[in-house]
Amino acid sequence: MNIPSKVIKRLSLYHYILNDIDGQYVSSAQIAQLLKIDNSQVRKDIKYINNPGKCRVGYDVKELKKAIEKNLGFKQKRNAFIIGAGNVGSALAKYDNFKVYGLNIIAMFDNNEAKIGSNINGTKVYNITKIGEMVKQSKVDIAILTVPKHAANEIADRLVRAGIKYIWNFTPKVLDVPEGVKVWHENLVGTFLQIRNIKG
Amino acid sequence: MNIPSKVIKRLSLYHYILNDIDGQYVSSAQIAQLLKIDNSQVRKDIKYINNPGKCRVGYDVKELKKAIEKNLGFKQKRNAFIIGAGNVGSALAKYDNFKVYGLNIIAMFDNNEAKIGSNINGTKVYNITKIGEMVKQSKVDIAILTVPKHAANEIADRLVRAGIKYIWNFTPKVLDVPEGVKVWHENLVGTFLQIRNIKG
Repeated sequence: MNIPSKVIKRLSLYHYILNDIDGQYVSSAQIAQLLKIDNSQVRKDIKYINNPGKCRVGYDVKELKKAIEKNLGFKQKRNAFIIGAGNVGSALAKYDNFKVYGLNIIAMFDNNEAKIGSNINGTKVYNITKIGEMVKQSKVDIAILTVPKHAANEIADRLVRAGIKYIWNFTPKVLDVPEGVKVWHENLVGTFLQIRNIKG
Repeated sequence: MNIPSKVIKRLSLYHYILNDIDGQYVSSAQIAQLLKIDNSQVRKDIKYINNPGKCRVGYDVKELKKAIEKNLGFKQKRNAFIIGAGNVGSALAKYDNFKVYGLNIIAMFDNNEAKIGSNINGTKVYNITKIGEMVKQSKVDIAILTVPKHAANEIADRLVRAGIKYIWNFTPKVLDVPEGVKVWHENLVGTFLQIRNIKG
C-alpha cells in the first residue's frame, strides 16, 4: 500500500461524507460536488484503495467506507504523547474524534509544576523530564508538539534523544531535527494566508 | 499575484525559518535541508515572489523576508469570527501568533448561555443568533468553525445566510454549502492518517 499523502487527506474527507449518507449508493459526482473538486479526482483517489463496491449507480456506501477504513488502517490503534499542556495541547487532549480514528493520547508532558500531576480529559500530565523513561516504557514514538515557540526546538531535541521518531508540530517554528525523524507541520498560519490570498 | 495554495503554505514555513536566522544570507539548500524537501522546490517557490535579494552566496535574509511579507500581504489585516467557544475555539482565540500574521479575531459566538457575554483572551462571546447583525455591522466574512460535528452543517447554513463567504472548518464534517462559499478543511484526522501510513 503506497497511497500519496494528499490522497490520504482526501480519502479521510470522503469517509466523513460516507458517515453522513443514508442511502445505499453514492456517486463520485456527489462527493466531488460537496468538496468542490473534480469528479475525475475522486474516481482516481478511490482507485488507490481496493474497493469492490463499484457498480453502475455508484459506489456502495458501506463497502467504500470499509475499504477506506481497511486501507488507511483505522482499526490499528496508535498511541501518542502530547507535549505541552497549554491551550492547544489541552484542546487536542479533549478532541474525542481522534479516538474514533485510532489515535490514543496516553500521556501529556509539561514543565509547569502547577500542571504536572493533573488530568486533562483522563490523560495525566507528566514532568517533561520523564519523557525518556516514558518512551522506553510505553514504546510510543509519536509526539504532538504544542509548546511555546521559544522552547520548541529545545524540546524537540529532547524528544529525539528520548527516541521519538514522528513529530506532529503545532508550533509556529520549523524544527531542526536529524535525518530519520519526520515532522508534520500543522501550519495554521499558512492556512490563514491561503484564505487571505484567495479572498484578496 | 497568483501563487498556488501549496506554495503559500511553504512560503509561510520559509518565513518561520527566516525569523530564526541570525546571519545576513541564507541558501535555498539550508531551507531545503530544514524542511527535508528538494532544493529545486525552494528555488521554484521563491521565484513566485518578487525577490530582489538573490546573490552568489544566497538570498539576503531581510530582503527575502520582506518579499514574502509583501507578496502574502502580512500587513493587510483581516478580521474573523470564531464560531463555537469550546476547547478548540478557545485555544484558537488564545493563539496570539495569528495577530502577528494579520488575523484579528473580533468576536466569538456560541449558543451556550453560560458562555455568552464572557471574554476569552479579550474576545467577547456573543449569542449565535446575533451573527447576521454582526456580519452586517462589521463586514466580517471569514468564520472559523469549531462547533460540535452534529451542529456543524446547521450552523454553516446560518453563517452563509448571514453573509459569511469563507469558512475555515475545524469540525470533522464536510459541509454542504452553496457555490460561492469557500471552505478550508483543517483536517486533523487526515494528518494523523498520513502519520500512521508513513509510520506503518
